[in-house]
Amino acid sequence: MLLHEDRLFPAEPAVRQIARSLYASVKDLPIISPHGHTQAAWFADNEPFPDPATLFVQPDHYVYRMLYSQGVSMDDLGIGQRYIEDPRKVWRIFASHYYLFRGTPTRMWLDFAFQELFGLTERLSAKTADHYFDTISAKLLRPEFLPRALFDRFKIHVLATTDSPLDTLSDHQAIRASGWKGRIVPTFRPDSVVDPDFPGFVERIAALGQMTSHDTASWSGYLKALRQRRSFFKDLGATATDHGHPTAQTANLSHAEAEQLFSKVRTGGGTAAERELFRAQMLTEMARMSLDDGLVMQIHPGSFRNHNKQIHEKFGRDTGADIPQQTDYVHALKPMLDLFGNETSLTIILFTLDETTYSRELAPLAGHYPCLRLGPPWWFHDSPEGMMRFREQATETAGFYNTVGFNDDTRAFLSIPARHDVARRIDCAFLARLVAEHRLEHDEAFEIVSDLTCGLVRRAYKL
Amino acid sequence: MLLHEDRLFPAEPAVRQIARSLYASVKDLPIISPHGHTQAAWFADNEPFPDPATLFVQPDHYVYRMLYSQGVSMDDLGIGQRYIEDPRKVWRIFASHYYLFRGTPTRMWLDFAFQELFGLTERLSAKTADHYFDTISAKLLRPEFLPRALFDRFKIHVLATTDSPLDTLSDHQAIRASGWKGRIVPTFRPDSVVDPDFPGFVERIAALGQMTSHDTASWSGYLKALRQRRSFFKDLGATATDHGHPTAQTANLSHAEAEQLFSKVRTGGGTAAERELFRAQMLTEMARMSLDDGLVMQIHPGSFRNHNKQIHEKFGRDTGADIPQQTDYVHALKPMLDLFGNETSLTIILFTLDETTYSRELAPLAGHYPCLRLGPPWWFHDSPEGMMRFREQATETAGFYNTVGFNDDTRAFLSIPARHDVARRIDCAFLARLVAEHRLEHDEAFEIVSDLTCGLVRRAYKL
Amino acid sequence: MLLHEDRLFPAEPAVRQIARSLYASVKDLPIISPHGHTQAAWFADNEPFPDPATLFVQPDHYVYRMLYSQGVSMDDLGIGQRYIEDPRKVWRIFASHYYLFRGTPTRMWLDFAFQELFGLTERLSAKTADHYFDTISAKLLRPEFLPRALFDRFKIHVLATTDSPLDTLSDHQAIRASGWKGRIVPTFRPDSVVDPDFPGFVERIAALGQMTSHDTASWSGYLKALRQRRSFFKDLGATATDHGHPTAQTANLSHAEAEQLFSKVRTGGGTAAERELFRAQMLTEMARMSLDDGLVMQIHPGSFRNHNKQIHEKFGRDTGADIPQQTDYVHALKPMLDLFGNETSLTIILFTLDETTYSRELAPLAGHYPCLRLGPPWWFHDSPEGMMRFREQATETAGFYNTVGFNDDTRAFLSIPARHDVARRIDCAFLARLVAEHRLEHDEAFEIVSDLTCGLVRRAYKL
Repeated sequence: MLLHEDRLFPAEPAVRQIARSLYASVKDLPIISPHGHTQAAWFADNEPFPDPATLFVQPDHYVYRMLYSQGVSMDDLGIGQRYIEDPRKVWRIFASHYYLFRGTPTRMWLDFAFQELFGLTERLSAKTADHYFDTISAKLLRPEFLPRALFDRFKIHVLATTDSPLDTLSDHQAIRASGWKGRIVPTFRPDSVVDPDFPGFVERIAALGQMTSHDTASWSGYLKALRQRRSFFKDLGATATDHGHPTAQTANLSHAEAEQLFSKVRTGGGTAAERELFRAQMLTEMARMSLDDGLVMQIHPGSFRNHNKQIHEKFGRDTGADIPQQTDYVHALKPMLDLFGNETSLTIILFTLDETTYSRELAPLAGHYPCLRLGPPWWFHDSPEGMMRFREQATETAGFYNTVGFNDDTRAFLSIPARHDVARRIDCAFLARLVAEHRLEHDEAFEIVSDLTCGLVRRAYKL
Repeated sequence: MLLHEDRLFPAEPAVRQIARSLYASVKDLPIISPHGHTQAAWFADNEPFPDPATLFVQPDHYVYRMLYSQGVSMDDLGIGQRYIEDPRKVWRIFASHYYLFRGTPTRMWLDFAFQELFGLTERLSAKTADHYFDTISAKLLRPEFLPRALFDRFKIHVLATTDSPLDTLSDHQAIRASGWKGRIVPTFRPDSVVDPDFPGFVERIAALGQMTSHDTASWSGYLKALRQRRSFFKDLGATATDHGHPTAQTANLSHAEAEQLFSKVRTGGGTAAERELFRAQMLTEMARMSLDDGLVMQIHPGSFRNHNKQIHEKFGRDTGADIPQQTDYVHALKPMLDLFGNETSLTIILFTLDETTYSRELAPLAGHYPCLRLGPPWWFHDSPEGMMRFREQATETAGFYNTVGFNDDTRAFLSIPARHDVARRIDCAFLARLVAEHRLEHDEAFEIVSDLTCGLVRRAYKL
Repeated sequence: MLLHEDRLFPAEPAVRQIARSLYASVKDLPIISPHGHTQAAWFADNEPFPDPATLFVQPDHYVYRMLYSQGVSMDDLGIGQRYIEDPRKVWRIFASHYYLFRGTPTRMWLDFAFQELFGLTERLSAKTADHYFDTISAKLLRPEFLPRALFDRFKIHVLATTDSPLDTLSDHQAIRASGWKGRIVPTFRPDSVVDPDFPGFVERIAALGQMTSHDTASWSGYLKALRQRRSFFKDLGATATDHGHPTAQTANLSHAEAEQLFSKVRTGGGTAAERELFRAQMLTEMARMSLDDGLVMQIHPGSFRNHNKQIHEKFGRDTGADIPQQTDYVHALKPMLDLFGNETSLTIILFTLDETTYSRELAPLAGHYPCLRLGPPWWFHDSPEGMMRFREQATETAGFYNTVGFNDDTRAFLSIPARHDVARRIDCAFLARLVAEHRLEHDEAFEIVSDLTCGLVRRAYKL
């Protein structure tokens, strides 16, 4: 077997027993997935998923960044290729390097899918590569492995995608039109039309104008266009926006200042500092709109995108070369908090790639400002040790109720149950220790773990 | 019962057994409280404490910041009001939100007071709110709940308050005059007369001149006035000073430079950088005076005070909206250390709100410079996990003997025994692990825990 | 006894049992020491080591920095003196302060040497000081305590020293000429000839020219001279270079820019920023040369050297007053990574004194770039807690296979077995937890611990 039923629980028998009983109370609860990067098209079309290499290797930057770091070439893995010519060959490369993932969450997520979904019980290696490839390939063609069937089997109650304001959301519309009852909702992610450093920014502003019939050459027309798209997203079920800026900087410019700055960046002008200021002002504008339309705001700052110049030039964006950087929240968020920090009807969920901010900045901020909540550990930190550090470092100041449950934040649909399972187990492990150390009573731990699994996410994201 | 006798001890039975025996050796030792924010007036007047809401909710920013973060209004809690009109109503709001404190140190401190002091054994909740209110209210009127009686019951050997140089210390004088033998000593905290950004700085400098009959319009008269007030504090038992600057910056200006800078800031002038430089120079001046008069110097840097603009404007300072910020020590302290770092008769105790500095800066500095010692985890980090991180991250480089025991640092007199109890338990838990992992012998652990409880604080603070 | 056979293993019996069995599989493996500061002369001359004070106290900044921090004078410890006049007196001071090292790795390393090497079993203290002094003194004169005999007894397969490019490596040559088979190899550490802030930089550049017959007054001659010295080191067995800059900054200047900058700093000119830029460029040049000659590159940035002005002036460099500082890698390394980051034939091993970079920067970088590997915890962090934090914070993103095993990095030859033993035990403790928590299978843990002990270091350092 690849999975042990006690995995991730503390070894001490009494603590493990508490963790087990907590886990038993939540393991069958539905999955609420309020933030991620799956494709609505999968559920609109409901076609079989492709071969194992195209499914598990090509789209998963966690997987191929590790292989690449150990000398496997991106080309040999089919990265950046439209179709993988020889998927079995890619799969064999992956299988023979599977030992590299020892001690990583990727290993746990994959083993979960391999065993729970495909019934595989022998470890993946060069030796078992073909058996895996054949087994997975065959099962993927069965009806019960189609996207909608898996959605139901995974007990997903709601799944949010992440979408550009320029997206027509035709797949979301098709899902609704199809009569299928799975709840797939879009998320408004305006980076490409609010970040002047985004490739094609100028053209996208123009496209936004065409799409909305607002004059996006003017500051007020641009804001109106954004409001209109938010409204459109909301009509299709969106409850949240998402913002992936390099920093958490916000600003509070006067209308005239903002107008002038916009006219500069809209035409491709502005210094680096001005483009940063524009992003900062746009976070504040987004908060202002959220106050009106009720969309929950997610801020994911601090990634140095496309750090590897050669890889970026050859393979493009999002190819495993984003690196976290130090991130400030205390000063960066102040302009926005000065305006809206005390609004109880606004929800802003903060994420970080800089764990030093958990106890120093994020928990103190969320433990005071009514509008702030702490998102779960993100990306590199969405791991057993990372999740445990988050609980250990944030809980004492922010408590449990300023957090919002788990995000799987994944492009890998098949890993969703595994990721939620890991999160539930770590929460149980953490709570079990608190109970064993008499810092919390049993009945409280049961109430909390249920909230961490479903209650908080539903309330924070209005789902 | 609200408290378990093994609370905070590791769950593993053998380790817990060691922790228990260590704790048994220190749990009844007296409390030495060298730094905090209780009021000397309580002990001068020895009047009953007020109702539960005024006692536990209104003055405790740990309590109301959490409630506020979850949407409870400050007005409804009586914050900023001279008298709470309906304390029972405030108490009920607090009680019905008590679950928010799960997993926080506030919960442990309060439960300790509720059970140990007031004999309450059922958890606080909406249901038990009135029972709590009535029980506590009634007991507070009894003679054994008067401040001096509690001081004795808590086995406090010495309690330091924190006071402005402009304070006449009349309450301290009254205590002495009363013949009561409780040792309450003042601490010299000159922020309001050395930080040009402090509200009323200019007027305070003038007041300092009047109080001391020195010409505080001149740099040398100003320094003489400060020396005189230090001496006055010392006569009333003070053994320490305390400095709460935004950063740990120090400076080493020439007399002429300092004189010129002073003349600028004294009249309300100076840029932000100059005001920071003045604070920096004043830390160095304070160290120089400490070399002469022997007062131990405490530095508490790194709080972004009054971060919430609206709350600051409406409710004033110290209302739960201070947020930690990243803090540098290595470069900031160098000017002062260049002058006095090697003085063995000087003691400077460093605190931090930035835990990243424990292993990177503070332990290496204190593990080298004879004048430096490490204060215990402060404020947001004065918690079970926070204290454990401090021991884990500082001990290997600084050892135990460059630390100074525990500070409760509290305004909440009734929480003092609880806070010291938590600190003792965590120290026992940490030491028990070292013993169980054969990194320390039993006899050494007993010696150390006694030092961590009483020995180090007495020696570091000259108490 | 000073040492327990289960030291450093987790207390929980089942986990401890796993740790024991893992440890049993690696405890007798040879020592590969790819980076350290022992003297080749010891093995060239093979003379007895000196008295205990000169051996254990005078050269070990871990030891005397702690003593100094607690008020012991450097003079009384013989620091900076050519010969210690009364070694027994120094030893007694050390012994009477030995309790200061409780909870530190120094204590573990010393106890290991005391017991395993000298058969001492009673704790060092004022009482046992003379017994220790006499026992150690007597044994050091025996043939089996001569450097070469200890080298064999320690089962050292290879030991790297760290050497200036201006060093003639005569001791290394003498070892080779002697016919003794111990493998001692030099490491190319060019700080003194690439860092314009290094004392005597200008003169050293001239000396480099004389030594190599290249015109080091010109940029190209300077580079040729460095290449020649690298080649000379390689001929004597060197497989690596080492770089101890204040920061990790790299640069990518044009030939003309570099030439111009060199002409400025070579003559003692240049601003602080220009000297930093020169160091940055030289890291890139060293990487370029490594691509050609295959020497593995080690970068040890982030130490604020000689922080204590008075101690530096009186006792010189490397006297226990170096303090870590915050260190950036993400931006600093980019210029070099833009050029060489994707080279699979280049190995750059990154170290840090800033633990916050483990999960935020170093693991993500090493988990992507083929040329990058993570060095083990360094200096202040080479300790049980520090090593555990490294594994916990780096493994989930970088895996095990982007790390390079252990460095003892020591001047204290007698501590080498102790340091490797601690590292092996902590690795076993970490792996045992993963196995007990079913995050890794037994067979995998055995394979990994063997790699962490010997395999990875051999491969990364080409030893």
